[in-house]
Amino acid sequence: MHGLMMDRQLLISALIDHAGKYHGDTEVVSVNTTGGETRTNYATIRERALKLASAFEKRGMKKSDRIATLAWNNHRHLELYYAISGQGLVCHTINPRLHPEQLIYIATHAEDRILFFDQTFLPIIEGVREKLPGIEAFVLMEPRNVELAERLPWLEFYEDFVDSGNDGHAWPDGLDERDASSLCYTSGTTGNPKGVLYSHRSTLIHAMMSISPDVMNFSARDCLLPVVPMFHVNAWGMAYAAPMVGAKLVLPGPGLDGKSLVNLYNREKVTMSAGVPTIWQGLIAHLEATGEKLPYLQRTVVGGSACPPAMIEKFRKDYDVEVLHAWGMTELSPLGTVNNLKNKHLALPEAEQLQMRLGQGRPPFGIELGVFDDDDNLLPNDGETQGNLYCRGFWVINQYFRGDGGDPLHDGWFPTGDVATLDEDGNMVIRDRSKDIIKSGGEWISTVDLENLAVSHPAIAQAAVIAARHPKWDERPLLIVVPKAGQSFSEDDMKAFYDGKVAKWWIPDTVVTVDALPLGATGKILKNVLREKFGDALMGN
Amino acid sequence: MHGLMMDRQLLISALIDHAGKYHGDTEVVSVNTTGGETRTNYATIRERALKLASAFEKRGMKKSDRIATLAWNNHRHLELYYAISGQGLVCHTINPRLHPEQLIYIATHAEDRILFFDQTFLPIIEGVREKLPGIEAFVLMEPRNVELAERLPWLEFYEDFVDSGNDGHAWPDGLDERDASSLCYTSGTTGNPKGVLYSHRSTLIHAMMSISPDVMNFSARDCLLPVVPMFHVNAWGMAYAAPMVGAKLVLPGPGLDGKSLVNLYNREKVTMSAGVPTIWQGLIAHLEATGEKLPYLQRTVVGGSACPPAMIEKFRKDYDVEVLHAWGMTELSPLGTVNNLKNKHLALPEAEQLQMRLGQGRPPFGIELGVFDDDDNLLPNDGETQGNLYCRGFWVINQYFRGDGGDPLHDGWFPTGDVATLDEDGNMVIRDRSKDIIKSGGEWISTVDLENLAVSHPAIAQAAVIAARHPKWDERPLLIVVPKAGQSFSEDDMKAFYDGKVAKWWIPDTVVTVDALPLGATGKILKNVLREKFGDALMGN
Repeated sequence: MHGLMMDRQLLISALIDHAGKYHGDTEVVSVNTTGGETRTNYATIRERALKLASAFEKRGMKKSDRIATLAWNNHRHLELYYAISGQGLVCHTINPRLHPEQLIYIATHAEDRILFFDQTFLPIIEGVREKLPGIEAFVLMEPRNVELAERLPWLEFYEDFVDSGNDGHAWPDGLDERDASSLCYTSGTTGNPKGVLYSHRSTLIHAMMSISPDVMNFSARDCLLPVVPMFHVNAWGMAYAAPMVGAKLVLPGPGLDGKSLVNLYNREKVTMSAGVPTIWQGLIAHLEATGEKLPYLQRTVVGGSACPPAMIEKFRKDYDVEVLHAWGMTELSPLGTVNNLKNKHLALPEAEQLQMRLGQGRPPFGIELGVFDDDDNLLPNDGETQGNLYCRGFWVINQYFRGDGGDPLHDGWFPTGDVATLDEDGNMVIRDRSKDIIKSGGEWISTVDLENLAVSHPAIAQAAVIAARHPKWDERPLLIVVPKAGQSFSEDDMKAFYDGKVAKWWIPDTVVTVDALPLGATGKILKNVLREKFGDALMGN
Repeated sequence: MHGLMMDRQLLISALIDHAGKYHGDTEVVSVNTTGGETRTNYATIRERALKLASAFEKRGMKKSDRIATLAWNNHRHLELYYAISGQGLVCHTINPRLHPEQLIYIATHAEDRILFFDQTFLPIIEGVREKLPGIEAFVLMEPRNVELAERLPWLEFYEDFVDSGNDGHAWPDGLDERDASSLCYTSGTTGNPKGVLYSHRSTLIHAMMSISPDVMNFSARDCLLPVVPMFHVNAWGMAYAAPMVGAKLVLPGPGLDGKSLVNLYNREKVTMSAGVPTIWQGLIAHLEATGEKLPYLQRTVVGGSACPPAMIEKFRKDYDVEVLHAWGMTELSPLGTVNNLKNKHLALPEAEQLQMRLGQGRPPFGIELGVFDDDDNLLPNDGETQGNLYCRGFWVINQYFRGDGGDPLHDGWFPTGDVATLDEDGNMVIRDRSKDIIKSGGEWISTVDLENLAVSHPAIAQAAVIAARHPKWDERPLLIVVPKAGQSFSEDDMKAFYDGKVAKWWIPDTVVTVDALPLGATGKILKNVLREKFGDALMGN
């Protein structure tokens, strides 16, 4: 017997309808790619998204067709999110940092029919266009530019595209909440990227839990600035969560340097932000150089890779900004855990509370975690036993787009590729990536722990630890560092710095100094490149 | 094309599984009906709910069978919530304040198979038992009591019932999130009560939105004490929301007087509560008499009927407790609106913010409101135009149980029976119940406004305004008041008190003093009783 409540579908269009109706005048501030800013609001975003959806229909776009974007965080990108998914099409966000060959692979694999892009990426598009015969329209996300239109006759312009739609368009009937809404490819460091195909339902349940006080804690009193890109995992869902609660939204465009961000934070009175640790390094460097403060910013979510403890402390002590340590993955929409204390922790001394904040946090309702051994046996949640981290829940992948890579699940659980511990409260600490962890004489050494210690050294800006092959121990840690400008140190200094902080046999055998670390499309350190270069450095030992 | 995310059902069992796994040691404190307290936790609640579910299976309870409860807010009632719905049965909560004849009607109409009840209600059960032949077991929510067992051979005991279940039971497979989970009858002031049949899905979506910062704002740092009864609309969803976030839960049992509540608030460090205005009147009276304070309580949700502005101010100024004014209905699970400010309001002077807090608030994502004229034409959201308030959304009724009353919807909208205004932000102000509003010479007079003013008079404890028939104006307002102990006033005083605060023609024609107002099963004033008694008082004019 079914309940007798209204049976409505959880659709992405309902988010912008809600924001347009009840938060119509709430501002969306957008830094434009070609300079200047646009100040708009949710009512206008909704109106233009509907017109754009009508244009898709007139162009013959059919349900579940893929429409690609290659764009920064800006208002047109937000309009595209809602127009594409709202019309029942699939919003395929492409990471512009990908190699052109990967971009061609992805757009072809996804069978994208239209590609919208920011002017920054025009050179890329000019280079790959002829290798993408399936794409019927390349649309520059700007008003018509006469000069460009003359030089590039194949080029279309966003504002013309919007204008081709009808006023008074309505979202299509008959969409199912399980229908595909958006597509994001993982930036695999090996092999071809694989697509994660989100549904309206997974996106909305993720958004509902993401706004809760123990996760992102978003309200209509917030002003959100997602530094995390809309071209990767939907800006951690903030592009959906902000209209859900009617939060003011500041979209920073291409300028993600410390100076530009601090300017936006303080001028727009941003209360909440989110980004990867490398962004915050640049921000803190700018604040320290200028002596500027962050009087409005209350909280920031740090994720994407493990956050150095020193950064959490600095934000808290010097800038009165609460850092929410989070962990997620493209395959998890992306939120897996967020670090927020519980009632029972409030009575702990501050030092212990701070210690608790260093982990990746605990899963909200909707996500379940487990650590498993290599034979898929469940290990205890005792806070000490390391194992392969598996996950299941309402917004977790079931399989990759087009079945790539076969069935990724192990008995209904998705293996995350991380090695972690879990305690009784579900507090999770990432110890390493499964493929990065160092197996030295049969024992595991966490590269993450060694890297966090390295960057707490006053002379070190960035650090990576890899497993170097070793004739006796199979693998040993090798530390690769980028020194801070004007700072120097010796290999012996560095080893002595580890002394007493980790077990003797964890101390890296060798320290290599480099000018920069190789980064992938989402800003993560490419350890496979480092392993290729330095992996045999200890074989002479 | 469907998305490729895990397809899991939104089930009530998932809530207690989450709380049991990740908040297992979080306390649930329960005041027992027969004296004393039980301190338990979510892990134990889950374990006992599973054993109880097994007992239902062994008793032959089949999917969607109704199991009734007649109980206070306590830990056994919470176990029943999860055991019944988790097992795929329907948890039918009965309001013990109903007249026995109504109770018999409801339990027969619902076809309840088992009835669990607190010892307080044993006399009621003894009185109605023989008129409920469909009920196979009457279970007293206590351990076995030898004396009672001897005297009442038909009586079963809760702890025996739990013990009859198996350890290691698992929730049944194959439940659909649209399956019925729970049933609550509206306390209609006229006609038979009608049943609202919630689904797992409506309950979980309601819970997800209810914990958000703009609604109830629940986190794992909270300690919740629902004064609102679990026997009516699932304690406003708090029985589901608390395990969802792992908040500590204090269940106050039968003692809802000011002294008992203040004792629990302060001893258990309760941060958040919820209840109807009449409860808060008793609480404030106790605080004022004793000089006690509420050092831990941060927020309280006030709903069920319109909250007098004076009460909001007193909580805020004298006790530093934020009052969240809310509006809901049994048919809305129950949350419709909550009053929380937006970003743009933060810059307003405090007096204007306070003024904004007097309305019923705005709908969260998931609820849509409209005001309509008597011909179902949509009226503007201008903050001034009064109309019939209609509602639609994910947790709104579609029809009543067994189709009672026919199709309640108007073109997909549920008519709430309230008269309200809506502004551009969705801020809703209830002006009256459709059937209470006074139509004087073709113009509408709000009884709610007149009542709020009356109780702000220093000598008035409670007030009700009704439409009295009038030979010239059709209807005119008649004020019925309960004076505060030892206070007196004249009719002329009272009329003068209104002078300058409302339009002259709004001032009640007559003031009647009574010892008490007639209250219905959910604590609301029974205006139909007052109209019967005083409705013709002005016909001689």
